[in-house]
Amino acid sequence: MRDLYHEDLDGITKSLVEITRLAGAAVGRATVALLDTDLTAAEAVIDGDLAIDQLYADVEARALTLLARQQPVASDLRIIITSLRMVSDVERMGDLALHIAKVARRRHPAPAIPQELHSTVREMGAIAESICAKCADVIESRDIADAAQLERDDDMMDELHRRLFGVLLEPAWDGGIERAIDVTLCGRYYERFCDHAVSVARRVIYLVTGERVYVE
Amino acid sequence: MRDLYHEDLDGITKSLVEITRLAGAAVGRATVALLDTDLTAAEAVIDGDLAIDQLYADVEARALTLLARQQPVASDLRIIITSLRMVSDVERMGDLALHIAKVARRRHPAPAIPQELHSTVREMGAIAESICAKCADVIESRDIADAAQLERDDDMMDELHRRLFGVLLEPAWDGGIERAIDVTLCGRYYERFCDHAVSVARRVIYLVTGERVYVE
Repeated sequence: MRDLYHEDLDGITKSLVEITRLAGAAVGRATVALLDTDLTAAEAVIDGDLAIDQLYADVEARALTLLARQQPVASDLRIIITSLRMVSDVERMGDLALHIAKVARRRHPAPAIPQELHSTVREMGAIAESICAKCADVIESRDIADAAQLERDDDMMDELHRRLFGVLLEPAWDGGIERAIDVTLCGRYYERFCDHAVSVARRVIYLVTGERVYVE
Repeated sequence: MRDLYHEDLDGITKSLVEITRLAGAAVGRATVALLDTDLTAAEAVIDGDLAIDQLYADVEARALTLLARQQPVASDLRIIITSLRMVSDVERMGDLALHIAKVARRRHPAPAIPQELHSTVREMGAIAESICAKCADVIESRDIADAAQLERDDDMMDELHRRLFGVLLEPAWDGGIERAIDVTLCGRYYERFCDHAVSVARRVIYLVTGERVYVE
């Protein structure tokens, strides 16, 4: 039987997984908003960020209370401190999904992303969503092989990101400056979204092995 | 006389101030690299990021050791946890300065920023440097009035950021897409740099008052 303290600790991990899934849903919906000029989807992401922020504050408060009351040592201490960091990464992922949704809303009813970039941005959105789902799984399972896999997914994101710039820089690009700015910013948001997921995965590896993976 | 434990705690704050000053110097130098197409300055920022990362890892390790060994409660616990967060903000500020320097290096010997935007970017660099200096002071002094001032400096940064986009979107803009991308990214880097400084200032307010200032 587990004591109350370890239930609290498990509860923090559960909430962390929940926030990560919310961030994944948010980036998926933000991609729909962006590509289908879907204002309702954009608004849903923008309004939904509050729930992520509240869960974030809640996890933080619970982790700090545990630290203060239980004075955990060794591995429990590491779990709590690492959870505090992971939750701040995941909250930021929610913000980045929000930024993408805001670009969609700002340009609505015009599309922010020109047709010739749809397939690339759709792929970026799919990778962001999938990396986030894996990230949630890894927080739950603490499987370090799965955690390491996220780096490779992120390489695919970087490749798509380069492709995005490649299209913008083709002489044939006639989407204009405003769209080039939107594409540049959205590309950056997707890339950062995945960077944070990788950072969470590295923290899981640290949690399990005690070895710090360097994060730029 | 202070005991060893409180000396450790003070040492963490001192290192935090030191990293913040390094990040400030980095963003100042990155701005020079960008506007004066100064490759040496760019390389110095890029190479210098390692020192920031090392100090970061060092502060983290010391904070975690203090947590594990001393099991601090109440205000000391808050100081350590808040320091861990501040140091991660400041480390990120170093990364953002590095990104700016990399844009300068990528375009060298061509200028990444066209002449008509020099004064705006120079102002952004100056505000970033100044906000960072204030940030270091505030970490040291814990003066919450000074901490609150950083929000207003950040408003100026936001205003400059809008001005940047305004110029890019003028019909007269003939800098081309590649430069528009560089300007967009650099603008974002300066803006995020200041966001992190504001976040540090808010954490100082939290440290002093116990009241959490909401950070998006």
